[in-house]
Parts: sequence; C-alpha cells; structure tokens
Amino acid sequence: MPPSAPSRRPLVTLATDFGTRDGYVAQMKGVLRSEGPEGIEVWDLSHDLARQDVMAAALFAESAYRTFPEGTVHVLVVDPGVGSERRAIVARSRGQFFVGPDNGVFGLCLEPRAPVHEIDLAALGRPIAPTFHGRDVFAPAAARVASGTALRALGKAVPDPVGMTLPLASFERARVTGEVIHVDRFGNCLTNLTKDALAGWARGSALGVIGDRPYGRVREHYAQVDPGEPIALFDSGDRLEIAIREGSAAAELRLSRGARITVQRQL
Amino acid sequence: MPPSAPSRRPLVTLATDFGTRDGYVAQMKGVLRSEGPEGIEVWDLSHDLARQDVMAAALFAESAYRTFPEGTVHVLVVDPGVGSERRAIVARSRGQFFVGPDNGVFGLCLEPRAPVHEIDLAALGRPIAPTFHGRDVFAPAAARVASGTALRALGKAVPDPVGMTLPLASFERARVTGEVIHVDRFGNCLTNLTKDALAGWARGSALGVIGDRPYGRVREHYAQVDPGEPIALFDSGDRLEIAIREGSAAAELRLSRGARITVQRQL
Amino acid sequence: MPPSAPSRRPLVTLATDFGTRDGYVAQMKGVLRSEGPEGIEVWDLSHDLARQDVMAAALFAESAYRTFPEGTVHVLVVDPGVGSERRAIVARSRGQFFVGPDNGVFGLCLEPRAPVHEIDLAALGRPIAPTFHGRDVFAPAAARVASGTALRALGKAVPDPVGMTLPLASFERARVTGEVIHVDRFGNCLTNLTKDALAGWARGSALGVIGDRPYGRVREHYAQVDPGEPIALFDSGDRLEIAIREGSAAAELRLSRGARITVQRQL
Repeated sequence: MPPSAPSRRPLVTLATDFGTRDGYVAQMKGVLRSEGPEGIEVWDLSHDLARQDVMAAALFAESAYRTFPEGTVHVLVVDPGVGSERRAIVARSRGQFFVGPDNGVFGLCLEPRAPVHEIDLAALGRPIAPTFHGRDVFAPAAARVASGTALRALGKAVPDPVGMTLPLASFERARVTGEVIHVDRFGNCLTNLTKDALAGWARGSALGVIGDRPYGRVREHYAQVDPGEPIALFDSGDRLEIAIREGSAAAELRLSRGARITVQRQL
Repeated sequence: MPPSAPSRRPLVTLATDFGTRDGYVAQMKGVLRSEGPEGIEVWDLSHDLARQDVMAAALFAESAYRTFPEGTVHVLVVDPGVGSERRAIVARSRGQFFVGPDNGVFGLCLEPRAPVHEIDLAALGRPIAPTFHGRDVFAPAAARVASGTALRALGKAVPDPVGMTLPLASFERARVTGEVIHVDRFGNCLTNLTKDALAGWARGSALGVIGDRPYGRVREHYAQVDPGEPIALFDSGDRLEIAIREGSAAAELRLSRGARITVQRQL
Repeated sequence: MPPSAPSRRPLVTLATDFGTRDGYVAQMKGVLRSEGPEGIEVWDLSHDLARQDVMAAALFAESAYRTFPEGTVHVLVVDPGVGSERRAIVARSRGQFFVGPDNGVFGLCLEPRAPVHEIDLAALGRPIAPTFHGRDVFAPAAARVASGTALRALGKAVPDPVGMTLPLASFERARVTGEVIHVDRFGNCLTNLTKDALAGWARGSALGVIGDRPYGRVREHYAQVDPGEPIALFDSGDRLEIAIREGSAAAELRLSRGARITVQRQL
C-alpha cells in the first residue's frame, strides 16, 4: 500500500543536526532522489537542530510532525550513538512514517503501541559506513517506505522502542514547580508546564507566575507588555513560555534548560 | 482563477527570520502541505533574515521577488508585532501574490495601488496562537491563495497598507550624501544611492566616491582592485556598494547601517 | 536530448557560499523557476559552504554529487573571481551536469576528459551584473541545461578546465605523512589519506596512527572509544579522519587544515 494518496507526490522530510557546511545532507538527498519513487519530494525541515541533543529533537518532532498530512515520511537524524548497538528504526503513527535512530527522538510523537520495526542493515544490501547511517541506512529506508514498502519488510518488530520522558513538574497545593526544557532561537524559554495540566490544577482560578523575578500573570501575546519587559504566556504548542518582548529571556534573565519556574494561583 | 498557469505546479516561497533550530518553519510547511492544493511546492528563500528587521526584509523582498514568474505566492514573516493589532494581509502585484504582516515588509515590492486585503482571522475557522501567525494565519492564507481563492474572499480591502520609506539621499550641486542601508553576509555595504539617481545627477560626468576613506571612482567589478583594497561599484540591484575585495568592508572600514557615504563628480 | 528520464522531473541542485541572509539565493531560484522547464525542481544542497574556499567546495562536490542520479544538474557557486576573466563553464560527467565557475570547484568530480564548455555570456542575451554571475549566468545556463539544451549550444569547448590538486601525502617505508584537508561542522578532521592508498601501502598489515598525540589503531566507529577520547577511523568517504567522540578534534587537538598526520604500521 503506497503511503500517500494517489494524487499526492510522495513526500520525505529531513531534520538533522548536520548543518549544511559539509556534504552530509547533500548525500542523503542524492540517495533519496536515486532510490526513491518517481516524483519523490524532499523537504528540509531543519539541519540546525541542537547538536546531538535528543530531547531537543524529540520536542521538534512533537511540534512539527502533527502539522503534516497522512503519508508523509519523516527522517530525523540526531544520533550521538551512530555506529554503536543502538537500533535503526521505522515506525508508523497517525498515518505518517518515521525513520531514524531508536534513541528517543520519536518518543513524543509516536502513539502508544505504534508499530515500530528495526531496520535490518544487512537486508539493505549495501555497504554501510559506521559513521553515516543518515546516508547509508535512513535515506535508503525512507526511500523504500516512500515507495510503499511495508515496515515489516524492513526488519523485525521492536516491542520496546526507546521513549522520551520530559522532566516532571511538581504540582503542590499552592504552587507548581516546573522547569525550562527548551530555549528557542529568540531566547524564549519553553517549560514542561502545559496549559492543560495547569488548567486542571488551577480549576478555574487565574494563574500567576513567579520566580526569582516577577513575570506577573499569564498573558496572551507579547504586545501586552512593553518592549524589554518579561512576560509569561502559553506558546503556540500550549506550553508555558517565559519571554522578553523584543528581547531574549534566556540572555537577560539568565535562564537555560533546567532552570526552575514556579507558578501559583493569581493572588 | 488559479494563480498559476495550468501546466505549472503552484509554488509558495517562504522567507522568515525564524531560523530552523526550532520547529516553527517545519510547522508552517506542514500546514502548507496539509491545506494547500494538490502538487503544491514550497521553496525556502531564507529563514535567516535579520531578526525583526522590517527594512532588511523589505529590501530582501524587493530584490528577490521580481525574479519569480507570475502566479508565485510569497510568504514573508518578519513580524515583531505578532499578536498585536497589526493587520495580516494578502496582496497581488505584477501577477504575484504576497502574504504576511502589514508592517512594511512588502513596501518596496508592491506596485502603487496594488490590491491589498486584510486576512479575516475569524473567517479562517481555526484556533490562532497569538504568538505564531506564521503557522496559524499566513500559511493557511497562502494555502488558499495557492488554491486559487480570490483575495477578497479572505477579507476586506485595505486602502492604506503600511509602506516602507528608505532614508533619503541628499543631492547637492557638488556632492551627494547617502547612507548604508544594508550590510550583506560578505560585509558588502549597500547604500540608498541608486545608479539611476546618480546618473541623473551627474548628467554624463563620471562619478567619484569619497568618504572618510578614498574609494576612488566607481568601478565595474571586484577584480579591478587588489585583494584587500576598498572598492565602490554598483551591485547586482544597481545600488552603490562599498566593498573590500576578498574582505569585509563592514568590518575593516567600520561601516554599518546608517553610515554616511558621499559621492562627487570625477575630478 | 532532455537530461533526465521522461518520467522524472528535471532537478537542479544548488550549492553556494552565499548564505541566505541576503537575497542572492532567492534571486537564483526565481530565475530558475522563471526560465527553467515545466516541472523544474530546485533542491538546496548547501548555502553555507566555506566562504570563497574553492578546495572545500571541490571536496563537497566530490562527496555529494556521486549520490545523485543521471540527469541531475548541479550548480555550484564558490567564486572569488566573479567578474574577472575566469571562465563560466558547463560540463557533463557520468550522466550528470555541472554549472559554475572554472576555478577548480569541479576538479574532483569530473571524469578525465569530460566535456566542458565555456558559457558564452553574450549569447545569454541578458544584462549580466559583474558581481552576481549566480543569478545572471549560472542560473540561466542551468535552466537551459535542465531544458535539454546541449552544452555545445552554450559556448565553445574548453580543453583545459582548471583542476583541483589536493596536497600529496608522503609514503615512506615505515610511515606515511598526510595532512588535514577539511574540518567538518563537528570538528572532525578529514585527511588526504584514503583507505585505498593506505591499504596498498600497508599490504595487509594493520594500521596504527600516531601524531603528536596517540590516536591508537584505526577503528571502525566512534563508539569504540569513550566519550571525550580521540579516535582515528575512515570516514564515510573512505578518508582517514581524526575525531573525538562527542567532542571536537579540531578544537581539542588544535588541528586545522594543513596539520600533519602520520601513520605507521601496527606495532
């Protein structure tokens, strides 16, 4: 069964931490073009993912892949363990396909019990450079998935793919303690505190945000504070975000991954 | 009426200041793929535009969009005012379509009296994150325009879109004073002095360029001076440019946006 | 004869050192879309090549282009001599096409005696900015090649295209002395010592690698040493590489292009 509707051309997306200064991404594209189905499209999502940062890659995947239609094949290579015993996998979830290392990068975007298969390297029938599975394993596997090859034809089922657990927030009666899990390009600091979880805790009360510095109540958009002022709001993925309007919260408030953020009900 | 000739696939270009380290661009692409017409193509023009710099974005648009054919849909998101009262717009000019914030980014590429319409956010019929109109407003609107939706179906006409005024040069009898308006990646310094304006002023006389440092006469190409030497020439967009052959004029001559450049007739 | 099989859409790849902060790449894409054949695809390979570094570009081309299928048109613009007397060329090798400056960037990917033609600038029939051949020469020429124009129709044959000679390694009886020719984004240091050349020299003996620091024997993949430890192995292009697992060999071992690396037989 082809992965995409007949009238759509097969789409493979690429996300890596390779940068494009060297030829690594170019080589993956060449393999996809050479081995993929007629009409294959390859769209770059990012080659600037944080280097060897599996959690950042998992957050990227969580936010990005849900916007794509069924049939899309996503290749994600952030792979500090390349060449070691970590498995190479293909998976299917919500009608989309995922190809990459079994190190947790897909841990936030696969449905529970989504079928995951280990790519049988020997069955790919090609030399495989131990340092570059992107070109020799993931691109060829994605080319096959985009051509309609069934996951089970690529290798045996994996009952226990590596997951991704975000740091847990601590919900107490009077306050919630979370932490920064990602700093974006603008210096906005995303936390592990989701809108749903906070709403359940606050039960209709308004939320205030405190910390070493007073962020005030949770607001709707940046323009509600003056330029240069800190603000707490829910980001486009419904996570609590600490930002500075037209500035960098990370730099100016000295926040980085792991920094604690506390929330209490509006006084 | 579809925006492109029947035999061409619909093309949407993307230019943003988002970078690709985070999932923002990827999410826009997913929406375009999910909501755009069959066969939609999405081409990256830049995700590395100067951050929240509306004038730089307008200069980018001026130089880039004129090279594209009719029917192209250009999405440009440099949007420091996202979530505030600034309008989201779609426009048509020279047979191409433009989607982005109404903050002047299209001020140098729209013809006078080009039709501009405000995107009616409520009519998009979807939740809109106040911090991410790229995904929730501009990408969906571009998908509709690429599908052939008329601009007027997206919202009411805007009689007064925000423009972009470049700094004015001062033309005196003996000299012209302009300024640097853009520094490119190579450190080349573009000015607000155009070839046409200078030719009109000089009326056939040769041009000399002076400043704090002697750039000599206006030359044709970099190889006319030795490596490391400063040079003044007209760039590929016919603006006077100050450069250093195989070097950075910005770094070595300490030029940045706003630096004054004076021109006088050849002695 | 069209350059690609009838059922494939024509593909043009782009690799430059332009970055995307400015409009240069965007303008090239617009020209390709406007002047290329119906259904043209344009894939970015890199816009982050080392600035004006012809040898790095040649190594990029060597590694990347062999993965693409016949009929692909590759545009490569790293061109410190733009506007001077250096020729603009098109070439064909192994069924693929190459468009760029005649400065050696294709020196490692063209077969011996591959046909090379000089692009006749006047015959392009358009204004040509002396500072931007990417837009005014290479993109239009690539559009024509992708449309099936014969190379000879673009200009006269070039019998002596500029080549690229990598630094030669010194093979002695007891040791081989090579050097670093490229440092990749991860700080991995590629050398001019290829697997084939070393195998011929060692004649079945195992290889050891020494230097100012002991890299030990040549290994297979990064995970064979502990994080933070240096390692010598053959990279995905079969060149000897000096790396540090989960670190930067360039930074931590102070290696840069030209650094000497010696190899001796396993003791």
